[in-house]
Amino acid sequence: MVYVIKVGGNVIDNPVLLEQFLADFAQIKGKKILIHGGGKIATRIGDKLGIKANYVDGRRITDAETIDVVTMVYGGLVNKQIVAKLQSKGCNAIGLTGADANIIPASKRPVKEIDYGFVGDVVAGELNVSAVKLLLDAGLTPVFSPLTHDGKGQILNTNADTIASSLAIALSGSYEVRLIYCFEKKGVLRDAADDDSVINLINRDIYQTLLAAGVLTDGILPKLQNAFNAIESGVKEVLIGHADDVRKNTTDAVAGTLIC
Amino acid sequence: MVYVIKVGGNVIDNPVLLEQFLADFAQIKGKKILIHGGGKIATRIGDKLGIKANYVDGRRITDAETIDVVTMVYGGLVNKQIVAKLQSKGCNAIGLTGADANIIPASKRPVKEIDYGFVGDVVAGELNVSAVKLLLDAGLTPVFSPLTHDGKGQILNTNADTIASSLAIALSGSYEVRLIYCFEKKGVLRDAADDDSVINLINRDIYQTLLAAGVLTDGILPKLQNAFNAIESGVKEVLIGHADDVRKNTTDAVAGTLIC
Repeated sequence: MVYVIKVGGNVIDNPVLLEQFLADFAQIKGKKILIHGGGKIATRIGDKLGIKANYVDGRRITDAETIDVVTMVYGGLVNKQIVAKLQSKGCNAIGLTGADANIIPASKRPVKEIDYGFVGDVVAGELNVSAVKLLLDAGLTPVFSPLTHDGKGQILNTNADTIASSLAIALSGSYEVRLIYCFEKKGVLRDAADDDSVINLINRDIYQTLLAAGVLTDGILPKLQNAFNAIESGVKEVLIGHADDVRKNTTDAVAGTLIC
Repeated sequence: MVYVIKVGGNVIDNPVLLEQFLADFAQIKGKKILIHGGGKIATRIGDKLGIKANYVDGRRITDAETIDVVTMVYGGLVNKQIVAKLQSKGCNAIGLTGADANIIPASKRPVKEIDYGFVGDVVAGELNVSAVKLLLDAGLTPVFSPLTHDGKGQILNTNADTIASSLAIALSGSYEVRLIYCFEKKGVLRDAADDDSVINLINRDIYQTLLAAGVLTDGILPKLQNAFNAIESGVKEVLIGHADDVRKNTTDAVAGTLIC
């Protein structure tokens, strides 16, 4: 089994949560991969550098200055600090972007109504699985920042959830894969206001019912779409749960929401 | 033969020189490793972020804010841009720091007269050679930024020349290694004012003579010390030459100064 684990920006931004999460992650036995989101630190550093964040329809545009900032912050500061911390906890981490070893080729999102700038859509089916296998089989733990490249020399900004599902799918040809999305809730909630209303299991039918009932929030929908895409593309199990439950979610006694 | 090639900040800082250098580097056949210096961009970004550079006796102090900046800039921006560019030129690069895969353990320099801050001295003999071999033997080209770690969770700033010689020495147990220092001169000069006064060969005797004659400048002395240390520790050949001559220096018709 390979655990492909994505942890979000809320953990990255909080040193206490991050420390605890990495301590838990380091103790997970067996082959594992971590994908981290960016967090708000890129925005803070961008602000200090005088780079204005541009939004269109609520979505951040990755212009030339912004891609440099996220390359620095996600690919450098956040990624390497995580690697150094994992090393100190006995986890032999190796920090990567999708450009490294050409692991995640992407294409710059085509301009339609909106020009998102240097945003990369993963080229499914072209991931360099052999490089990831090489590292995993050598006992290394790849740690990915949410960056890809276009093969023409340009780094691109790519959604961390998508990177996680793309890696999980690519590896499912070689291993049994459990994809775990860690976030700030205990799972997919039946009632957004009630943190304990976790739905333990969601399949396509239940998903349609929840969708029709308007229970699913904007935040959780892309995660569920990524999850179903992963399941339908060969990933054995997908879990959506709290970052605090990451170790539990690598056992049989899972917490959170199981997608199947 | 493995080529361990260090390129300095003057090339990193100049997009035209960097493009040409990477085009040349990408065409070098066989196993190769690139170590890049930081360049002045970290200082520029540090200035913009309002971080004052502290110098003692002309040496930059790496305080807590500065180590974050160099981690971002060297480990993220510079390293990942080089990787993406090399990928576009057909070179399967993988960007690393010494923290990744625990390849270069270091210890924080002890405070004597001066506290250099988060500066790491490489722990010779403890490099994780097997990880580097794994990558090289798989046809990957490791690209190192000048960062190490202390094994306790802290990234450290380490001189790129020293990282290059440490990697060359560590690999010399498994491969024949040629260590190539690329900089802005054609080699070690007999007359600092005459760019064509390259000394083609320096051994210990010649080194002592040049030293006594006061021919060697402050800039070249640490390179020569690293070079002799490498030669005396098992590295087959060390070359000091111009970045423009990097391809030539991976052939038998070397340009620059050969240390033996």
